[in-house]
Formats: sequence, structure tokens, C-alpha cells
Amino acid sequence: MPLSIAHLGPSGTYTEMAALVCAELLDAAEPAQLCPYPSIVQAIASVAEQQSQLAVVPVENSIEGGVGVTLDTVWQLNRLQIQQALVLPISHALISCAETIEQIQTVYSHPQALAQCQGWLTQHLPKAQLVPANSTTESLQYLKQDPTAAAIASQRAAQIYHLPVLAYPVNDHPDNCTRFWVLSLAKSNAGSHTSLAFSLPANRPGGLMSALQVFAQRDLNLSRIESRPSKRSLGDYLFFVDIEASLQSIEVQAAIQELEQYSETLKLFGSYSIKFAELAPVTP
Amino acid sequence: MPLSIAHLGPSGTYTEMAALVCAELLDAAEPAQLCPYPSIVQAIASVAEQQSQLAVVPVENSIEGGVGVTLDTVWQLNRLQIQQALVLPISHALISCAETIEQIQTVYSHPQALAQCQGWLTQHLPKAQLVPANSTTESLQYLKQDPTAAAIASQRAAQIYHLPVLAYPVNDHPDNCTRFWVLSLAKSNAGSHTSLAFSLPANRPGGLMSALQVFAQRDLNLSRIESRPSKRSLGDYLFFVDIEASLQSIEVQAAIQELEQYSETLKLFGSYSIKFAELAPVTP
Repeated sequence: MPLSIAHLGPSGTYTEMAALVCAELLDAAEPAQLCPYPSIVQAIASVAEQQSQLAVVPVENSIEGGVGVTLDTVWQLNRLQIQQALVLPISHALISCAETIEQIQTVYSHPQALAQCQGWLTQHLPKAQLVPANSTTESLQYLKQDPTAAAIASQRAAQIYHLPVLAYPVNDHPDNCTRFWVLSLAKSNAGSHTSLAFSLPANRPGGLMSALQVFAQRDLNLSRIESRPSKRSLGDYLFFVDIEASLQSIEVQAAIQELEQYSETLKLFGSYSIKFAELAPVTP
Repeated sequence: MPLSIAHLGPSGTYTEMAALVCAELLDAAEPAQLCPYPSIVQAIASVAEQQSQLAVVPVENSIEGGVGVTLDTVWQLNRLQIQQALVLPISHALISCAETIEQIQTVYSHPQALAQCQGWLTQHLPKAQLVPANSTTESLQYLKQDPTAAAIASQRAAQIYHLPVLAYPVNDHPDNCTRFWVLSLAKSNAGSHTSLAFSLPANRPGGLMSALQVFAQRDLNLSRIESRPSKRSLGDYLFFVDIEASLQSIEVQAAIQELEQYSETLKLFGSYSIKFAELAPVTP
């Protein structure tokens, strides 16, 4: 049986590109099988329910910030472990069957992609209507029947669906990139970075400081802290923390032991390494 | 000239409801004029450009978390001050011209509203296609021409556009509420809560801890901390902090003075009070 990798589909999304990078890294005897799912929640759940061995999901974009649904789902479904982090450059193309940019009246894409091209769109298509879609790839379906429509997606998606690229790149920030997690149920404790999340007991002033001090006291650097609503009441949060050290280090072990005293619920998502991927050039 | 209040439109959005609550609180001689804008960015920009006196914008939902675009825009456009925070209960209705729920094939709404009703939709409309829209109200435009379509919006929006409510409430969490900020260019320093944001110098391990300790050392409680990407590079953040004390307190003044040493850029958004609003019942 080949390894199956769940990801947000359909074919042509940036998450599928990350899943392809993940498949290459695996170096398995048989090529891995990519399984597209209609939502991030369903892709992650397929691993928890043992229908897929791995899931590749976006966790943070350098412009738009954290992907809340990924953090919330990893917290809710137990036993998920991060095997690897992948950072992929994101470079958007304006795809359309129009002959010139001036003909375009509507631009479809995922809301995050529209937001990442806001400046370019305001400058070049100030009158176009921006219409959200469930994924960058889904937005391509409108183009063949409507030459006044455009979509924002990857060059690779344009190639897969045989659609012309009218402008590239159209993202406002050249350093646009997205970090993905490769999740599975296998124990993961070797790697340079450790991720965990915790909730705090209600109404204890200074609770977050006490929790963060367990790392500062041991000179453990936090590369990221992100709060998510606990969904119990407004002002009650979960905190997701990335530590620049391995679960195998004595300091991390001691910090986690102390953190248990300050937190209400504490979940460990494992230690893993970060791979910075380059995109293969799209050949015309 | 009546006061003008900018908000995300069109009429019937939850932000318009918050703007109505804000107008009531003003208690001005002349009723305030509500000005709908097509995006949160444009509503906030209208205050910075002195086209409106006030803007009412969502900043955080108890289920879906922070509204990134609001935080990013308040950081980018200088001189904006928070005059008031408003917390509004959010209760969604399923609106459709279908005779029964079984006829519904498509559900339109803002992605946050779809996410907040995910459990209800999976249970009652497992096969329906979920289609994102720019606002809860915008999604109502499809209903009259298509009886297999439904939208998720407020009961009030259904009433304004003369459309039938098929099910209410349909949100998964009964304690769903959203916090809004009332922004203007007027100096704001009286109130129980203070908001500020800061960036940190690059590559200084433990930088966030040093910054947060200026509050902990003075027993100042943080009711919220939220990180946003600085948009410079992945892993570089701005931190938005809410303090449970006024800018008029000596401790807050001293903490801010010390924070200036640890931060790269520090911006103060003022002190303000929080109002918990109740929604007026919708009369059939």
C-alpha cells in the first residue's frame, strides 16, 4: 500500500504543492498517493480516523497570519503530531481568458489570496468586483464561460487547467510565503522545533506571564506565540507556542513539567525540523 | 452637520447593528448618519481621511478569533484612537425562500458565519454546497431568484430585505459574540482598558518576554495578546496587547516608558470603556 497524503483540494492549490514537496521528502519505495479533501478540517480528520497516514495543512502565511481552522482542529482532535514543517514561497498569477486586463470585471479567488493582491488589484483593476471562493483553484471554474472574469491562483494551476496567465506576479509583497505542517499519528520528538498549546485556568491575573516564564527562565526562545479563542467565552484563550529547541532537551522537558502547574490543559504536538522549499519553475 | 459613522455595509450586517448601538450611545443633538463601506479597510480609511468622524469595526469574535484586517489597518494608518469597545451577541438565522430545509442545495454567507454554523450545517444540510460571500448581507441577493439557495445572516437582515427565516438560531455556540472598536482621530485616554501594539527588534532572543514583563512587574493584567505578521518576513510579528488599566494610571505610563526600550515601534490606541450591548428583539 502506498502512503496516502491528505490535503486541501482540488488539484492546483498551494497546499497540493506542499503535499508534492512532502511526497518527495519521504523517499519511500513506492510513490505516495495524494488525497484531495474539500476542507482543511476533513483533511486533518482523515488522519485522526486513520484513512490517511499524513495530512499537509497550512498553518501560517507571512502576510495574512495564522490559519485559525488548522490550529483549532489540531487542538480538538487528539494525538496529532507534527512530523515536519515546510515553508513554501507563494507567488500569485492573474489568470483569465480575457485578451487584455482592461476587459476584466470580476476577480475570483480565496479571500486570503485576494487580500495578498489588494494593492495590485486597486492599482490595475480598481473597478473590478472581488468575489471570494473556497480555494484558489475553485475560482478557475468561472473563466472559460466568462472572458470578463479572472482568477488569482498559482502558475501551476493555470497550467493544469490549460488557462492563460495575464499577469505574474500579482502579490503585493515579494516575500510572501506559507508555512505548512505535515501531521500524522506517529510519535515525533526529534527535531529543532517544538510546538505545544495550553489553556489557562479562568480568572487568574498574570497567568500567561507565569506560563511564558517557564521558557524564559531556561533561555528557551519562542519563535512564535498565537492566541486562539477557547470558544467558551470572549476573552478566554488557548495559546499556541513554538519553541526553538527539541523535546529531547532537558530544558524543554523541565519547562513542560513546570508549565503543567500553570496550565489547565496542555497538549504537545511534537518536535520536528523545518524545510524551506523552492518551487520548481513552471515551464510554458 | 450630523456625526457620520462608517461601517462595513450593506445594510443588515452585524457591524451595522454595532454602529446603531454606537449612535444611540452618542446621545448627540442630531441623530448620527450611518455610512456603509464595501470593506473594513475603506471604513477605517474614511476616518483617517476625515470623511467620517467615527468608524465601527469588528476586532474579535469569540469563536473565530481576531479580525486580522482590522488590526493591520489600525497599525498602518496612524493616529487612530479607540473611543469605545462594544460587545454584541451574534445569533445567526438560516434565511431562504425554500418551503422546507430539505430543498436547500446551496448556502451562502461570509466565511466566518459559515464557520460558526459548521456543526448545524453538517447535521441538517450535509449535502449542501457552502459558498463564501463578502458579507452576511450580500449573500441574501441570491435567494429571491433561487428557492434552492439559503443564506446565513441576522434575523434583522431577513426583516430588512423581506425574506423568510427557515431556522433560528443556527450557530453552534450559544455564547457567540463579537467585539467591535469605535475609532476616531480624537485623543482617548479615559477608560478601564488600554490597547497598544509593538514590533520587536529582529533576532533578539527573549524579546517578547522582556516586553511583557514591563506589565507583569507592575501587576498590570493583560486581557489579550494577539500576534500579527509584520509582513516583512515569516516569523517576524507585531503584538497587539489589551491592558486592564487606564492610560491615566501611573503604572501604565511607567510600563509604556520602559516598553519603548524593548520595542522597535510602539503605537498607542488609547483608553476606553467596554459596553456589553443587548440586541433589540426582532418583532415579526
